[in-house]
Amino acid sequence: MTHAFRTLSIASLAVTILAASAAALAQQAPKPEQLVKWRQSAYQTVAWNSSRIKASVEGSYNKDDVVKAATTIAAIANSGLGALFIPGTEQAKGWHETAVKPELFQDGKRVGEYAGNFSKEANELARLAALGDPAAVKEQFGKLNRTCKACHDDFRNKD
Amino acid sequence: MTHAFRTLSIASLAVTILAASAAALAQQAPKPEQLVKWRQSAYQTVAWNSSRIKASVEGSYNKDDVVKAATTIAAIANSGLGALFIPGTEQAKGWHETAVKPELFQDGKRVGEYAGNFSKEANELARLAALGDPAAVKEQFGKLNRTCKACHDDFRNKD
Repeated sequence: MTHAFRTLSIASLAVTILAASAAALAQQAPKPEQLVKWRQSAYQTVAWNSSRIKASVEGSYNKDDVVKAATTIAAIANSGLGALFIPGTEQAKGWHETAVKPELFQDGKRVGEYAGNFSKEANELARLAALGDPAAVKEQFGKLNRTCKACHDDFRNKD
Repeated sequence: MTHAFRTLSIASLAVTILAASAAALAQQAPKPEQLVKWRQSAYQTVAWNSSRIKASVEGSYNKDDVVKAATTIAAIANSGLGALFIPGTEQAKGWHETAVKPELFQDGKRVGEYAGNFSKEANELARLAALGDPAAVKEQFGKLNRTCKACHDDFRNKD
């Protein structure tokens, strides 16, 4: 094997390894459809837990149920949902066509404010839920719902 | 108004109120399709957060990301998922046909053990994530995955 040929082989091997690594990375990065499915799932999980708190504050109050539900909403609100709204996911279909308006991807500052408010009010609800005062939970649940509505009004298509 | 007629009217009013209350209750109770959609969403939210921890323990470790993901998985594991597997949801279609085997609805004892293991290992993962030792997190993440697999092997249809 000539020196030149050996050098070429090593270079070629390096290219092969790089290509394989790139393929592995590409495989690891979730596709837009997967990200949209996950974001729809995360918000549905918030909706489930929200329905449980609503049932408690409007009917028979169940402290244990409210604590579990509020803790789950806070964890999801704090989980870094922004990672599910990256470029490429504007039009992707998850469980269904995305309901997110294009404007969301163009107004990071306002989206960040809304997301911050969602986390803040969800954390406060989890704190109050643990104390177990139904009236305080009901009032805070209203505040949390207003953070949902603010974002939906601006950035979610109507059903 | 005769006495008999007035009695009849009151009885009729009572029936109307009862019927209205029953309708209100029926409206409040989520339909099986909704419950299945929520349970599929909750487990997809676990899958999303699990994929984030996998990326960290197999690649570049991001403590903040692992803490957020592990906290979310633990909150969902502790949230009372059993409420989403009530009678009536055996065959219901959520985002897709349920993948749950009929056996799950017939072996509450074993399901309860699996659910308890899932919570236990998820809580331990959240605790270790906060300490930030990648090796300990990786080992515990393996333990958590085995609780998922145990339940899937017995109670989830293959794709």
